[in-house]
Amino acid sequence: MSAVGPLFNPRSIALVGATDKSGWSLNTYNNLIEHSFGGPVYLVNPRSEIVHGVPAFASLSAIGAPVDLAYVMVPTAAVLAILEEGARLGIRNYVVLTAGFGETGPEGERLQESLTALAEREGLTILGPNGNGFINAAAGITPYGLPIPAPLLSGPVGVVLQSGALASAVLSFAQARNLGLSLLTAMGNEAMVSVTDVVDYLVDDPATKVIALFLESVRHPAEFAAVARKAWAAGKPIVAMKIGSSQLASQTARAHTGALVGDDDVVSAAFRQLGVVRVRSLEDLIITAGLLASVGSLPGRRLGVVTPSGGGSEIIADRADDEGLQIPAYAPETVRRLTEIMPKFGTVANPLDVTGYVVVDRTLLGRAMEIVADDPGIDIIVLLTELPRVRPPDPSIFVEAFGQTAKRIQAAGKPVVVVSNALTDITEFGREIAAASGFPYVAGGIEHGLTALGAAVRWSESHVSPEPETGPEALVEGETVGLWAEREAAALLTANGIPVVPSTFASDVDTAAAAADAYGYPVVLKAAAAGLGHKSDIGGVRLGLANEAEVRSAFVDVMDKTKADGVLVQPQRSGGVELLVGVVRDPSWGLTMAVALGGIWVEVLRDSALRLLPVDKAQALRALTELRGIDLLRGARGSETADLDVVADVVARVGQLAVGLGDRLESLEINPLLVRGSRVEALDALVTWRT
Amino acid sequence: MSAVGPLFNPRSIALVGATDKSGWSLNTYNNLIEHSFGGPVYLVNPRSEIVHGVPAFASLSAIGAPVDLAYVMVPTAAVLAILEEGARLGIRNYVVLTAGFGETGPEGERLQESLTALAEREGLTILGPNGNGFINAAAGITPYGLPIPAPLLSGPVGVVLQSGALASAVLSFAQARNLGLSLLTAMGNEAMVSVTDVVDYLVDDPATKVIALFLESVRHPAEFAAVARKAWAAGKPIVAMKIGSSQLASQTARAHTGALVGDDDVVSAAFRQLGVVRVRSLEDLIITAGLLASVGSLPGRRLGVVTPSGGGSEIIADRADDEGLQIPAYAPETVRRLTEIMPKFGTVANPLDVTGYVVVDRTLLGRAMEIVADDPGIDIIVLLTELPRVRPPDPSIFVEAFGQTAKRIQAAGKPVVVVSNALTDITEFGREIAAASGFPYVAGGIEHGLTALGAAVRWSESHVSPEPETGPEALVEGETVGLWAEREAAALLTANGIPVVPSTFASDVDTAAAAADAYGYPVVLKAAAAGLGHKSDIGGVRLGLANEAEVRSAFVDVMDKTKADGVLVQPQRSGGVELLVGVVRDPSWGLTMAVALGGIWVEVLRDSALRLLPVDKAQALRALTELRGIDLLRGARGSETADLDVVADVVARVGQLAVGLGDRLESLEINPLLVRGSRVEALDALVTWRT
Repeated sequence: MSAVGPLFNPRSIALVGATDKSGWSLNTYNNLIEHSFGGPVYLVNPRSEIVHGVPAFASLSAIGAPVDLAYVMVPTAAVLAILEEGARLGIRNYVVLTAGFGETGPEGERLQESLTALAEREGLTILGPNGNGFINAAAGITPYGLPIPAPLLSGPVGVVLQSGALASAVLSFAQARNLGLSLLTAMGNEAMVSVTDVVDYLVDDPATKVIALFLESVRHPAEFAAVARKAWAAGKPIVAMKIGSSQLASQTARAHTGALVGDDDVVSAAFRQLGVVRVRSLEDLIITAGLLASVGSLPGRRLGVVTPSGGGSEIIADRADDEGLQIPAYAPETVRRLTEIMPKFGTVANPLDVTGYVVVDRTLLGRAMEIVADDPGIDIIVLLTELPRVRPPDPSIFVEAFGQTAKRIQAAGKPVVVVSNALTDITEFGREIAAASGFPYVAGGIEHGLTALGAAVRWSESHVSPEPETGPEALVEGETVGLWAEREAAALLTANGIPVVPSTFASDVDTAAAAADAYGYPVVLKAAAAGLGHKSDIGGVRLGLANEAEVRSAFVDVMDKTKADGVLVQPQRSGGVELLVGVVRDPSWGLTMAVALGGIWVEVLRDSALRLLPVDKAQALRALTELRGIDLLRGARGSETADLDVVADVVARVGQLAVGLGDRLESLEINPLLVRGSRVEALDALVTWRT
Repeated sequence: MSAVGPLFNPRSIALVGATDKSGWSLNTYNNLIEHSFGGPVYLVNPRSEIVHGVPAFASLSAIGAPVDLAYVMVPTAAVLAILEEGARLGIRNYVVLTAGFGETGPEGERLQESLTALAEREGLTILGPNGNGFINAAAGITPYGLPIPAPLLSGPVGVVLQSGALASAVLSFAQARNLGLSLLTAMGNEAMVSVTDVVDYLVDDPATKVIALFLESVRHPAEFAAVARKAWAAGKPIVAMKIGSSQLASQTARAHTGALVGDDDVVSAAFRQLGVVRVRSLEDLIITAGLLASVGSLPGRRLGVVTPSGGGSEIIADRADDEGLQIPAYAPETVRRLTEIMPKFGTVANPLDVTGYVVVDRTLLGRAMEIVADDPGIDIIVLLTELPRVRPPDPSIFVEAFGQTAKRIQAAGKPVVVVSNALTDITEFGREIAAASGFPYVAGGIEHGLTALGAAVRWSESHVSPEPETGPEALVEGETVGLWAEREAAALLTANGIPVVPSTFASDVDTAAAAADAYGYPVVLKAAAAGLGHKSDIGGVRLGLANEAEVRSAFVDVMDKTKADGVLVQPQRSGGVELLVGVVRDPSWGLTMAVALGGIWVEVLRDSALRLLPVDKAQALRALTELRGIDLLRGARGSETADLDVVADVVARVGQLAVGLGDRLESLEINPLLVRGSRVEALDALVTWRT
């Protein structure tokens, strides 16, 4: 990782390639001047003595004073020379706005590699190329190539984006939410400084409470995972919008499990295990980050809803239900106290509509909230109200009213989430009232506000996976190449503590018959041969053999059809619920486990739960309970109730085995894993190796 | 229905109960003055000569001039007397703001009934009580009790709300979207004028292109259905937000089907069949209505996406995928022309990112759009751009640039949907630029913009059910009371052209044995007795009887256990896919059909499709294809591919039978309806009658 503290905190800045002809140059210069950068700004242009109305220098060398950061806008071909000159002058930090590098093809990639090589050789830190720069709002340092709308609000959210254009959209949207940022960075090509580096910095940055990410791809999953764990340990939520959900799932062959493991699903699984809140829109990114920065970790999911509107109450109830949040009845004492203050045409209930009487009594909403805050059955208060949009002749009425409510919110002793009806900007006047009255963050609009609240509650309840460790070495006999069919795979499972259906290998018909007799009927015969993965497709599986004669006949038949080395004889199981437990290697995130119910659940519904490995038993249990068909394991449709504890244990063992197999493993699949009450056993398995 | 045209278009208004002490009174008066009501406004107050700074009248009678509308704010107890006085004076139209009527309990309900009775007797039209009034923005008539933010934008969307507080939220939000309204009505208690009446008016109103509804309940489903069909025939989309999705599904016993027919699901089914676009947030309500008003009916679902941002392109791609919209590759000629104008570091693709070079060349985005518009494989253009938020020193640059793009949009010959990155207000300056440049509606933010576009495309493709007619009388033998068990139900189905498994009623063992022999083995025996609904629960069903001896033994056993009148002997079917087809009577919407797949599909997944009756065969087919498990009928998992045309025909016949049975029917359920290829037959059925 790169240390980016000095990059984001320069005391002097040179704009290299500054020119009146470039909008980027003008924007960057204006931003530094208008947002009051405290140190010197040097404009560098070899051909103009005056740029943007001030004297320019012919070169970096001509400045003759220390430069902490060079912001480079020269043509692509000239960038390297500028960095070399800067390195000679001892300039350590660079933003490269110039495009034409890795994003354009092989030639650009080579140029970008030269850039990175130079930087590593000379100990330079480079943000970009092809990035708009950054805005350190906390320190008033704004080397950023697009216009920054005034006022620049400084605050608790650090934003990192793999998109320049969206950086500006996010900046405007955060301002419209009256939400201050600590740092905003448009990453560009990440030739050197990566998203992970910036997140790492923000985790340590005291001005940042929440980190918001816009990601096109996670370039360094292992580093990302490490820094996400660090953020979680520090209690700083990461909220991330990761695009690409519409891309086709990776088509890499990955046994049966592959179909369940789309790239986007793996990202979701990884984020969940790392405590990263995934959101689906720019609006949710900023509103959720703002809410988490405002209320922090939440103590539960029981909402007390206080509104001046029946319609608003019911929208909140619908949305809370979607998010799995609860709106319990108020305690009798709460109802008694609310009844005392409510107008007589109102009704006391949760959600509470104090009615349009708020037009007459501006304190009614706040007083109702104060009472609800005392209810021991409520974890979080949701208050529906709006900051004013338009300046009236006498604003003091608003300051007074919102100040009173703000005081009540501070005194509530519980998190209060304020939402407005719909998502409109907090206007300049709204910002003034909020500042003058101490009114908290308004999580704009019921729709996005409740999405944010649901996400914040889930983050507060999240459990982050332990950092992967080298687990116990798996016990393996045999050469780990190619494909291991059932016989070898079953031996591997058994050796590593995973229960497998009893099985006897028989290469002659008498051994087969004897084994069948010993198990009792009915039995199953399966063709067994090294590398034979799809035995049922070639007539290599015979079910329901009821007596010795059938076994003998089947043996001859199977051996004849499949030319196998022999057969596996197994007792035939009946009843129970079939699971599929598979592990595949995701190209980015590594070993990933899918748990699914068999039959239509997996084949038609693709009902599966994913986990990056390793998983412990508790996580395996959580994965199982995420399945839509989990009720089948709980005894729905007359099935025997499964001992989920035992199932989770076996699933976790499969994960441990996969981790223990390490780099050798390509995929491992148990299909089916049969569950009958507390009896869990693998009926078939397949392993593929990487070499 | 009430004729509400005169109500919404008064030339003179009296505010009765006007007083300086009431915020509502002040708001209403200010609204009328500030938004330039053209006619006289009379303030009526028996105790003050001056109200809101102008002379007041002691009573309606004292005005001595014609009054088209009285806006009534007097105390609850005084309302009736005011209406009586008004009626004597010939005042025909009233808004009653006063609360304390039906919303408060039995006493208020009685008062409200007196109000309605008076109105009907005297031919008065009343909006409310307990409603804030209306805003006729098209005509500048604003008798509305809450502040109206300036400017009041007049435009193509008519809004009707069953919520006063949300009416103001919607008004602010529409203004922030730069979307003008024709009429906004806060309904109040709907004692007389109902949502349906106002929608009916808006369908005929030339100023209204799209109707937006916020509904807490649909009070008159049949009237609503009629007016929705009228709107659809007129080509005016209705967009509706209906709350209550979190309410528990109706607990009324309704056979097995009941569990599938939640109230909210029925609303969704009804809206879909009526061509009403259902949305889930206030933001989507207004943004979708605005989009439909802007682009009208859309010719397809193939999008050409033109943006200045890679990140924005990919968000649009993800969201389009969610909405089932397509982003096909551009035609070779389009690619060639785009390549000519793109900067060399850009990439030509759909979605198109013309790059941040738009900062240098403000015409690039518009020129790219112009080229994409010529692509014959594109139905709709999605253009990502923002109106400016902040007034620069020289606004003429913006007017020029947006004017050029606006001209290109007008000339495109295809619908162009403009979205911004995130949902921020269109500011006063943005409105000015839009007005000065002729720039079209911006469907704010990718998230809501694409939701709106998906809804608009679905509306454009929607098929509205025919108005229910009295269908052919069903053929019924027997007394239609209580519960009809399988024997009677099967006879009813057969008589009305629905295929049923062959069945022989046998009251003695020899008849049973002879029937079984005739069918061939295996056979099924089922206890048959009038009113016996759950025969399997009492051991009344015996499956898989393989020979005559088993049939004789089973006959004795079933007769002994169930004390039935006899048994039904049927051939036992194997294989195929089981459906459930049920009809129940929804208390609001009437006969409603549910189609579901059997087994876990219905029991665990509640996978069903609903339709209000009647349905034709095409609609039955659409319902089937909505099932998540439809692939089972298409041959997934080795099942025989079903002839969906035959299945749909049988399903439609069931619906016709239910409609033909009319008021007598409470519920009818076929479970299972067995489908094997083109063979479709009911294996069991149950009918319950209303009386």
